Amino acid sequence: MSNLALGIWQSEFDNLEFLMSLTEEILSGNSRAMARAMTLIENESGSARELLKSLFRKTGGALVVGITGAPGSGKSTLVDVMIQEYRSQGKKVGIVAVDPTSPFSGGAIMADRVRMSRHYTDEGVFIRSMATRGHLGGLARTTEKMITVLDSGGFDLILVETVGVGQDEVEIVRVADVCLVVLVPGMGDDLQAFKAGIMEIADIFVLNKSDQPLVEKVQRELESVLSLATRGDGWTPAIVRTIATEGQGVRDLVQQVDLFNQFRRSSLDWGARRRQIVEDNLRELLKERLLEKAIQQNAVWDKLQAASVAVSERKIDPYSAIDNIVEGL
Amino acid sequence: MSNLALGIWQSEFDNLEFLMSLTEEILSGNSRAMARAMTLIENESGSARELLKSLFRKTGGALVVGITGAPGSGKSTLVDVMIQEYRSQGKKVGIVAVDPTSPFSGGAIMADRVRMSRHYTDEGVFIRSMATRGHLGGLARTTEKMITVLDSGGFDLILVETVGVGQDEVEIVRVADVCLVVLVPGMGDDLQAFKAGIMEIADIFVLNKSDQPLVEKVQRELESVLSLATRGDGWTPAIVRTIATEGQGVRDLVQQVDLFNQFRRSSLDWGARRRQIVEDNLRELLKERLLEKAIQQNAVWDKLQAASVAVSERKIDPYSAIDNIVEGL
Repeated sequence: MSNLALGIWQSEFDNLEFLMSLTEEILSGNSRAMARAMTLIENESGSARELLKSLFRKTGGALVVGITGAPGSGKSTLVDVMIQEYRSQGKKVGIVAVDPTSPFSGGAIMADRVRMSRHYTDEGVFIRSMATRGHLGGLARTTEKMITVLDSGGFDLILVETVGVGQDEVEIVRVADVCLVVLVPGMGDDLQAFKAGIMEIADIFVLNKSDQPLVEKVQRELESVLSLATRGDGWTPAIVRTIATEGQGVRDLVQQVDLFNQFRRSSLDWGARRRQIVEDNLRELLKERLLEKAIQQNAVWDKLQAASVAVSERKIDPYSAIDNIVEGL
Repeated sequence: MSNLALGIWQSEFDNLEFLMSLTEEILSGNSRAMARAMTLIENESGSARELLKSLFRKTGGALVVGITGAPGSGKSTLVDVMIQEYRSQGKKVGIVAVDPTSPFSGGAIMADRVRMSRHYTDEGVFIRSMATRGHLGGLARTTEKMITVLDSGGFDLILVETVGVGQDEVEIVRVADVCLVVLVPGMGDDLQAFKAGIMEIADIFVLNKSDQPLVEKVQRELESVLSLATRGDGWTPAIVRTIATEGQGVRDLVQQVDLFNQFRRSSLDWGARRRQIVEDNLRELLKERLLEKAIQQNAVWDKLQAASVAVSERKIDPYSAIDNIVEGL
């Protein structure tokens, strides 16, 4: 509040200018502008929202492919050879690699970056390694924004690689048009449980390291699970064998991605599913805005702090504490 | 609205009676009452909130131990032998096993249940296998409620087993007093990335299947990562070797859990961390209540539906759509 009025106006004007030129540069496919936008998004800068508003309507051209699987399944190598395959078709490929990260330190090891460094000199490839930052729904929300930037920047394909199985997989469905689940032979006795969670998520199963023993066993198990279940949209997930380290099976995989993409575009189910995802996102946004608004207006902040202490000390339960705050609005 | 006034009063009275007797039975440690309460919670019954309110103040006696790791690391077997160890100490043990599940079907394979069936006849053991139900933050929120039930029911230990690495791990910190991360030798080249995400989460590392080759290599790698990082609370995570299938190392593990528990109780950092977690939870609850309230009062529901269609068709961006709704409030 100590700034002079003139100063504020000037900086707002500068900010508008900055956002307009950044938007233009992104739409023309400028990599440095995209990287800058992504940093604004990761830092949750206020400008990010304005930027995303202006980019959003230029999106819809990219195919978003989610790639998930357990640690050690060779996802990064697979992404690496998929990039090569798509590049040989002349397509521009964006990659969002979601590294696990500490929820406290915000740090992340950029192992994938190093591995994929040979793509860094290729203007048709854009790689972003991302921290999940620990907040709930962090992957889905931030990844979605990164996708908006890449999509509006004219990338044909966006590969989203997530480490891990579990909640992440559930979230990847929300951002991806096609979901690949990477399995490897001999994953151990949790495979049954693992499969239960990914049956509806996987549009295509990738059996990587398929030169290893036990590949037949995993394939048979998968097929038996697939034969029991029917998906709402009628699609039967394909199983594609690959040896990513040698590039084997990657052309086949890319063809299956195309095939599923054609299927989903003609599927009645797809539109409804997309709309549901959009609605869930809008509800989340609305909740956040309502909280922002409440906190600004009604000393709700202080009440929330006091309630946190009281609940920590088990003097009141969380539901009654919130009842009290809401009644005071 | 077609019910007679008398009928409504009668059923509300019945519901109150039911909740009061259910609360009493849970507080006295009745397993069937706890199972019933958990079903109410999973079904998101309106009664669940009232029940949790009355149980909450009786909680705080249990130690919550989170156990996470990749598929195939032998977590379930480890939980199995930990139950035995704690039972031999005369302690009551509750288990919440979070299975991955389809976000669409809600189904789950109960593999752990079968494996642990021998505990089902033991009154001092309560096992709940849980679906994450696909919603963001599903694990943290529902698991927390299950823990409230078990805690108020007088269980000394609550073991929370989650399949998967990634977002789930971040969430497990929110509910657990002590976090175990289970690793196995030879996890492959994603181990570096895997470790980055769990450094701050793991209070104790369990090197399971420690009779396998490469165990020394994993231990050395872990130690080198641990030597680089310093946790905010000053704790250096222990590394415990186990062979869960033979029960080896489990007594040592349980001692380490005790040790960390003593540490955290004396840690200045811990209270602040707990309060932050409580505050985050309260914010989530408040957001939901604000959305409920908005939807009830202002035809916001219709606006949200219309906005979902418009955003799906990229006629408007999500931020502007929400701006419009919030301005109309």
